[in-house]
Amino acid sequence: MSRFAYVNGRYLPHADATVHVEDRGYQFADGVYEVCEVAGGRLVDAPRHLARLQRSLGELRIRAPMSLAALSTVMREVIHRNRVRDGLVYVQVTRGVARRDHAFPVPEVVPSVVVTARALGSARREALAAHGIDVITVPENRWQRVDIKSTSLLPNVLARQAAREQGAYEAWFVSPDGFITEGASSNAWIVTAEGRVVTRPTDGAILAGVTRAVVADVLASLQITLEERPFTAEEARAAPEAFVTSCSQTVMPVVRIDGHTLGEGRPGPLTQRLREEFRRFAQVS
Amino acid sequence: MSRFAYVNGRYLPHADATVHVEDRGYQFADGVYEVCEVAGGRLVDAPRHLARLQRSLGELRIRAPMSLAALSTVMREVIHRNRVRDGLVYVQVTRGVARRDHAFPVPEVVPSVVVTARALGSARREALAAHGIDVITVPENRWQRVDIKSTSLLPNVLARQAAREQGAYEAWFVSPDGFITEGASSNAWIVTAEGRVVTRPTDGAILAGVTRAVVADVLASLQITLEERPFTAEEARAAPEAFVTSCSQTVMPVVRIDGHTLGEGRPGPLTQRLREEFRRFAQVS
Repeated sequence: MSRFAYVNGRYLPHADATVHVEDRGYQFADGVYEVCEVAGGRLVDAPRHLARLQRSLGELRIRAPMSLAALSTVMREVIHRNRVRDGLVYVQVTRGVARRDHAFPVPEVVPSVVVTARALGSARREALAAHGIDVITVPENRWQRVDIKSTSLLPNVLARQAAREQGAYEAWFVSPDGFITEGASSNAWIVTAEGRVVTRPTDGAILAGVTRAVVADVLASLQITLEERPFTAEEARAAPEAFVTSCSQTVMPVVRIDGHTLGEGRPGPLTQRLREEFRRFAQVS
Repeated sequence: MSRFAYVNGRYLPHADATVHVEDRGYQFADGVYEVCEVAGGRLVDAPRHLARLQRSLGELRIRAPMSLAALSTVMREVIHRNRVRDGLVYVQVTRGVARRDHAFPVPEVVPSVVVTARALGSARREALAAHGIDVITVPENRWQRVDIKSTSLLPNVLARQAAREQGAYEAWFVSPDGFITEGASSNAWIVTAEGRVVTRPTDGAILAGVTRAVVADVLASLQITLEERPFTAEEARAAPEAFVTSCSQTVMPVVRIDGHTLGEGRPGPLTQRLREEFRRFAQVS
């Protein structure tokens, strides 16, 4: 099936979707992105994703390439042209094309915009969620502005690769002080023996996940206590339940951390409930 | 004047030099690069640059896209086609194009290779060197594998932009412990009151600069003591001389750090001598 991408104002066949070699996204990772879930052909939590994109652009002082409403229209068009019912839409905005020089181009250049979409088989994701995933921990080695959703993702690539090579699905970064920050592309959560849910506050050491925010809403509605505090890898390995959140996985149960089995080695009951409830709270538009 | 770039096996007009939007260099900064000086149409210190490129590729387990000899031939061809006598040649290698997923593609894909070249006016550089440059210090906030010359350069971009906005030319990163690591795209050096030259050892907190290595050779030949040790921003601001090294600037005198004037506020005599001697030691091929 042919696929289409939006690149700088044009809808192109996927094979022809290219950017210039002097795009600052290519030479400097000078760009930001969002990945938004598509469910039933519609965008999941689009306003929160677009607001976060706007914040990322603002932090890097990249001019918004178009209004958020226009961008949302492009995203819908890419979903439509690719006939994606359930999957992901990817948006990347970089500072644009300029002769290579670290500082921002003078005069300012037009930002580059790329939007792609693809279907995701729900069967594989559901099978994964039914069994739960393995997580490993790796030393936190990223730059200090991971609150910006930039394409500066090389440490995340290496962490995820390390996970795969150890038969795991995700890697959690651990600070020198022993506390988990977040996963290579997800936020990290544990459940305590008392049934409280714990995740790290958005303290600059993590990205403010959209799914994370929705799960906080779910917890509030279910009157389950959310403890926003750092937790250690040691506490996580001893927790009865754990999970990760991301827009492509929603709430994904974790059953092993660094080879330590959590609880019965099956997705925990509270985690499963949150996964089910998530759908009621996600805003589809 | 038309310009040409080498992109994945083809020599293309610069305007047509594009890579796919799913090149991992664009989406993940999953690539490495080298910038090599061109003098009189020839490559300066090419073997050291190619050896470092090979090391960077090895650290990221990106397959070498071709032999170093073949790559050097491509670099020469790009220099030739662009009629560059004095300037720079830029080489970038990424892990290649694959459907977006953090972990390395399975099966392995063909790495992407881009080579560009451009002339650099020597008049501007010489004028800059005659006056010396201003440097500011900024907090070290980069990831912990800056020994790999990756395109994960967003913090370097922001540091260099901060320098420009403060009327300076380069930014030096300072660790929480007060020690300078290196510049946004250069190595940092000071001269002590006793005439010893100090630069940080290649301890993982800096990139092993090619020009840095050549200057070490120059110092040895001149029987000037090189102290490879970390130095603080405070020590630097009080130093009689300082300079930065990079392949595009060779030895560039620093005359102010964070607004503190060094010595007489003119390029120091030892720095000037090193700049002159550099040419004798750089390997042109």
